[in-house]
Amino acid sequence: MCNNCDHTIHGRHHHYGWDHSIPPIATVAPGESVFFECLDSSGGQLSAESTVEDLPALSFDKVNPVTGPIYIDGAEPGDVLKIQIEAFTPSGWGWTANIPGFGLLADQFEDPALNVWSYDPESTAPSLYCGIAQVPLKPFAGTIGLAPAEPGLHSVVPPRRMGGNLDIRDLAAGTTLYLPVEVAGALFSVGDTHAAQGDGEVCGTAIESPMNVALSFDLIKDQPLKFPRFTTPGPVTRHLDAKGYEVTTGVGPDLMTGARDALSAMIDLICATWKLSPVEAYMLCSVCGDLRISEIVDMPNWVVSFYLPRAVFE
Amino acid sequence: MCNNCDHTIHGRHHHYGWDHSIPPIATVAPGESVFFECLDSSGGQLSAESTVEDLPALSFDKVNPVTGPIYIDGAEPGDVLKIQIEAFTPSGWGWTANIPGFGLLADQFEDPALNVWSYDPESTAPSLYCGIAQVPLKPFAGTIGLAPAEPGLHSVVPPRRMGGNLDIRDLAAGTTLYLPVEVAGALFSVGDTHAAQGDGEVCGTAIESPMNVALSFDLIKDQPLKFPRFTTPGPVTRHLDAKGYEVTTGVGPDLMTGARDALSAMIDLICATWKLSPVEAYMLCSVCGDLRISEIVDMPNWVVSFYLPRAVFE
Repeated sequence: MCNNCDHTIHGRHHHYGWDHSIPPIATVAPGESVFFECLDSSGGQLSAESTVEDLPALSFDKVNPVTGPIYIDGAEPGDVLKIQIEAFTPSGWGWTANIPGFGLLADQFEDPALNVWSYDPESTAPSLYCGIAQVPLKPFAGTIGLAPAEPGLHSVVPPRRMGGNLDIRDLAAGTTLYLPVEVAGALFSVGDTHAAQGDGEVCGTAIESPMNVALSFDLIKDQPLKFPRFTTPGPVTRHLDAKGYEVTTGVGPDLMTGARDALSAMIDLICATWKLSPVEAYMLCSVCGDLRISEIVDMPNWVVSFYLPRAVFE
Repeated sequence: MCNNCDHTIHGRHHHYGWDHSIPPIATVAPGESVFFECLDSSGGQLSAESTVEDLPALSFDKVNPVTGPIYIDGAEPGDVLKIQIEAFTPSGWGWTANIPGFGLLADQFEDPALNVWSYDPESTAPSLYCGIAQVPLKPFAGTIGLAPAEPGLHSVVPPRRMGGNLDIRDLAAGTTLYLPVEVAGALFSVGDTHAAQGDGEVCGTAIESPMNVALSFDLIKDQPLKFPRFTTPGPVTRHLDAKGYEVTTGVGPDLMTGARDALSAMIDLICATWKLSPVEAYMLCSVCGDLRISEIVDMPNWVVSFYLPRAVFE
């Protein structure tokens, strides 16, 4: 519970996919705060007791539920919804999976894999992985967005200009997010909470963890926005950068190929140096490693780099 | 000068492009250190007194000279050259240009522009830009690489698997770089030194600054490498992250378009908030803002983000 919030939206009020015909649960005035109970991205199909044998039964019709929608009083198409991300109440457990057909190296990792994490929900201290890695945590909401103007049901998987499944690991507590409004009331929903993720979310999942979220809302008129933007209150990587990074690269004329090459090289390096299995390394990269575009101007070859924080192994 | 280096390669020993038939200046044994005098990427065509009127006369045959090559004793194709980046001796001046036809938004910025920077070469304290921005500096070598096996002269502009014009802003003092060797002696050269750059080098130039570089070399046998990799000795963004970031995004099915959208949105934000001109904002983004791939798995839309450190304006 959130003692200071103006509204609470319970986890049973969730939906699958974006559709502006889904009726809002509550009407919220600009300036008000809302406490959202969020399910994990499996929608409760996985639990802290799940094993890899449970993955094939996962129903994709029931993944990535989002809690909401709420109607923001006075929001109109063309406005910007300003969302202050106040605080997360983590659950203390999560899961990371390699789901066949999904992920940056889906062609190379065809078998399902699952890691169940446990962590201290109060301290969110680093969580142990495979007995040798310590993964720093920074909770955030993977899916946070608004209903689109286009009628009908739209898959929750791809992010859009109104947000949605952005999976931006810096949408953490203290951050202010700005989203373009396309329908009356904005119709905001949130879910897919993560205990940690690297830039890229390369294996397709983060530390997927049910969590509650306190947010507050405001409206900005007459400042149109094409895509989401946000402001972080301070540094974004100090929880994991203290020991520096191991970095691999991919060099060539296609950014996607470069990203795949950089990631493949990092998986090889982790396996050779720290003796994880390839799929363990792949999932580790997803929860704490970062894809960056080092240069995008030296025609015709670009450089994509994958940064693994060494603190994870030290 | 470098009192403790085993060799000095003077700036007059430079070449344009990569060609394994260029004779080496010196033979260096594994374990030895070398002091390189590096020209700026204009090869001396621009100076601290240059103005934008000098840009159209820039000869592209004389850009990006690299100092070298040196022959590493015992290096053979298939080896890895390990380069310890020891220290930089900055010159105290540099330039950033929008060069027509070059850069991530070349279609939108068709007119030449030039900014000449001055900075304290001892402290490398942040350098003032347009009277209102303070850009943190972190010197590094933009071009650092080896000769390719393929005969002939190869343009210095695109980076390759043996390195070259990588423009990776974290190849700074203290970093260890690993490059795959393709020819006997490796034939190493370095140049294109930068006083600062963001991930992406989005306008096509950094703070281009002549600088001397001390490096030491070692050979690794029997550990083949597909692309460059490196290890940083510590955090890579603490010189600029203290006040957090303004972040814009591009969302869609193409990473290049996403990068362009995120950058365009940041230029708009800088112009609206801090009243720089668009080309001033574009060049500022190039020297201190970062392109990151926030997610690359939520088919069919990816998220590319552009991070501008707020410390620059605070």
